[in-house]
Amino acid sequence: MADLGSVFAGKSVLITGGLGFIGSNLAHRLVGLGAEVTIVDALFPDCGGNLFNIAGIEDQVEVHVLDIQDEAGMGRLVQGKAYVFNLAGRVSHLDSMRNPYADLESNVRGHLSVLEACRRHNPEAKIVYAGTRQIYGRPRYLPVDEAHPLDPVDINGVNKLAGEWYHIVYHRAYGLRTVCLRLTNTYGPRMWVRDSRLTFIGWWIRRVVEGQELEIFGDGRQIRDFNYVDDVVDALLLAAASPLTDGQVYNLGSEPISLLELARLLVEANGGGEYWLIPFPPERSRIDIGDYYGDYSRIRAQLGWEPKTPLREGLARTLTYYREHRQHYW
Amino acid sequence: MADLGSVFAGKSVLITGGLGFIGSNLAHRLVGLGAEVTIVDALFPDCGGNLFNIAGIEDQVEVHVLDIQDEAGMGRLVQGKAYVFNLAGRVSHLDSMRNPYADLESNVRGHLSVLEACRRHNPEAKIVYAGTRQIYGRPRYLPVDEAHPLDPVDINGVNKLAGEWYHIVYHRAYGLRTVCLRLTNTYGPRMWVRDSRLTFIGWWIRRVVEGQELEIFGDGRQIRDFNYVDDVVDALLLAAASPLTDGQVYNLGSEPISLLELARLLVEANGGGEYWLIPFPPERSRIDIGDYYGDYSRIRAQLGWEPKTPLREGLARTLTYYREHRQHYW
Repeated sequence: MADLGSVFAGKSVLITGGLGFIGSNLAHRLVGLGAEVTIVDALFPDCGGNLFNIAGIEDQVEVHVLDIQDEAGMGRLVQGKAYVFNLAGRVSHLDSMRNPYADLESNVRGHLSVLEACRRHNPEAKIVYAGTRQIYGRPRYLPVDEAHPLDPVDINGVNKLAGEWYHIVYHRAYGLRTVCLRLTNTYGPRMWVRDSRLTFIGWWIRRVVEGQELEIFGDGRQIRDFNYVDDVVDALLLAAASPLTDGQVYNLGSEPISLLELARLLVEANGGGEYWLIPFPPERSRIDIGDYYGDYSRIRAQLGWEPKTPLREGLARTLTYYREHRQHYW
Repeated sequence: MADLGSVFAGKSVLITGGLGFIGSNLAHRLVGLGAEVTIVDALFPDCGGNLFNIAGIEDQVEVHVLDIQDEAGMGRLVQGKAYVFNLAGRVSHLDSMRNPYADLESNVRGHLSVLEACRRHNPEAKIVYAGTRQIYGRPRYLPVDEAHPLDPVDINGVNKLAGEWYHIVYHRAYGLRTVCLRLTNTYGPRMWVRDSRLTFIGWWIRRVVEGQELEIFGDGRQIRDFNYVDDVVDALLLAAASPLTDGQVYNLGSEPISLLELARLLVEANGGGEYWLIPFPPERSRIDIGDYYGDYSRIRAQLGWEPKTPLREGLARTLTYYREHRQHYW
C-alpha cells in the first residue's frame, strides 16, 4: 500500500461535502497526514453536514459554505488543489422519490459544475468521486462486481449513476484525472443518526444507545456488506494517490452479513438491547433491492485495499463515539 | 401487427417535441389515423423544431409552445391524454459537450417534469420515450442488443440514459405505463439539415441537393444502421398500442451499411454527386463510437415490428421532400 503520509503531506486538497459523514472523516485523516484541507459544503438541512464533525480540526481546515452548483465559486476553490475529493451529494433514496428535483440538482447538476470548474481552472487535479452500489439495483448475481449490469431502482440511483458517468466522460473527452469508487453501506463516527432516511444503520446505532429496540424490515435474512468509515477513507486516499486509477471504477465491499446477525452484533457490542422483525413499509419495499454484497477484488488487486476493521470493532467504536457526543447528533 | 387505426382513432394524444423531426412525422400519421393530437414544443433554436413540419395538418393539431420543464404547464397538458409520446430533447452530441447544462435541463430535468406531471395528473396514460443507441457507447459486440453494457461516451449519452431510466423507475415505483425505444440513426422528411450538429445524414442530404460534395470522416468503412422515419413512427405506435410493453426497453435497427456505401446510394438516388474522405476532426473523434448496428429481434418478436422502407427508397423520398421544400429547411 502507498505511503499515504508522503503523498499528501503539504498537498492542497479540496473536499466537497466535507462537513458530512465520510467527508469529515477524510478531513480528519488528511489533516493528520499534513495536508492543507479546504472544505466546501452547502450545509443543506437533513443532508448530513454538521459543523461538529470537524471538532478538533476546525482551526486547521478552511471551510466554505457553498452549493457545488455554484460553478464560479467552485472555479475559485479548485484552483491550486492537487486533489479534489468529490463527496457532496444527497444519499436518501426516499427523499429522492419525494423531491426528485432536489436530488437531481445536487447529484447531477452539482457534479457537472465541479467537473466544469476543474476542466476550466484546474485540469491537472486528481478527482475522486464517491459513487454507490445503488446503481446496480437488484443484484442478478453475488457478489456484485463492476461489470454487473447497471439498473438503478430509484431516482437517487439514476442520478448517482449520471454523476459517476460525468466523471468518466470528462476523463475520456478531456483527460481529467477522475476515479470513481462505488461505496456500499458505510458506518462509523460522524454519520447521520437523526432518522433512518440516510442509512438504517445510523438509526439503529442511535436506538441501541438510547436503549430502544431495533426494527428489522422483513425476515431479517437480507444480506448486506458494511464498511467502517476509516476503511473507506483508506480507499479514497489510495485511489487518489495512484496514477493507475485515472478513468477507473472500483467497488468497495466487505464480508456479507444478514441484517439479523448485524442486529445481534450491535446489541452485543452495546452490552444489551432488543430487536424485532416488522413487515416492510410499502414505500421502502418498492425500492428495496434484496440481497447485496460487493466483489472488491479489483481494488484489492490494483491498490492493495481491503477492509481492515472487523464489524464488531467498528460498531463498538461507533457506539463509543455517539455515547460521548450524542448532544451534537440527536 | 396491431390495427393501428382502431387503436388511435378518436384518442387524445400528446406529443412532446412534436414540431421536431420524428415528433412531427408522428403527428402527421396520428392525424391520419383519426387521433386528436396535441403538440408541445419549446421551439428552442437549433433543436430541430420547425412550424413548417406540421404544414398540412396545422388546423388539425393543437400546438403549445412550452418547455417540458414547466411541470405545471405539463400537468395541464397531460390531463385526459390516452398516450404521451415523449420525444422532446436535445440530440447534438457536440452541443452537449459545449453546453452540458442545457443538455441536462432538457434531457434529464425535462423528463422528470413530464413524468411527475403524469404521476400527479394522469397516471393511466401510456408513455412512450424516444431513447437512443448512444447510451451503449462503443460497441463491445455486434449487433448490439438491449443487454449490451451501457457506457455512454458523451454528456448527451449520459443524460439520455438518465432520462430513459427515469421512465423505468416511474414504472417500477409508481406503475406508470412507460416504454422506451432506443432509436438508431433516423432519417427522412422534416429532419434538421441546417448543419451537421444533429445528424450527419441530414447534412449529407442537403449537400447532395445543393450539388455539393459529401465529406466522409475517416476511411468510410464505419458501419451504421439507418431507419426511415415512417418505420420509427410505426415502432412508436406499436409500442404505445401494446399493454405488454409497460416498463420495457426495445432497440430499433436495420441492415448495417458502411458510410461509404451510404454515400454511394445517396449520390445514386440523387442522380449524381461527389464524395470524398477527410480525416476525423478531433472534437468528433473523441466521442466517436466506431462501428454500430443494433439487434432489433426483441421488438420484432414481441410487436411484429421491422423496418419496411429500403434505404434506397427512403433516401429517394427524402431527397424529393427537400427539393420541394428547401426554403423551409435551409
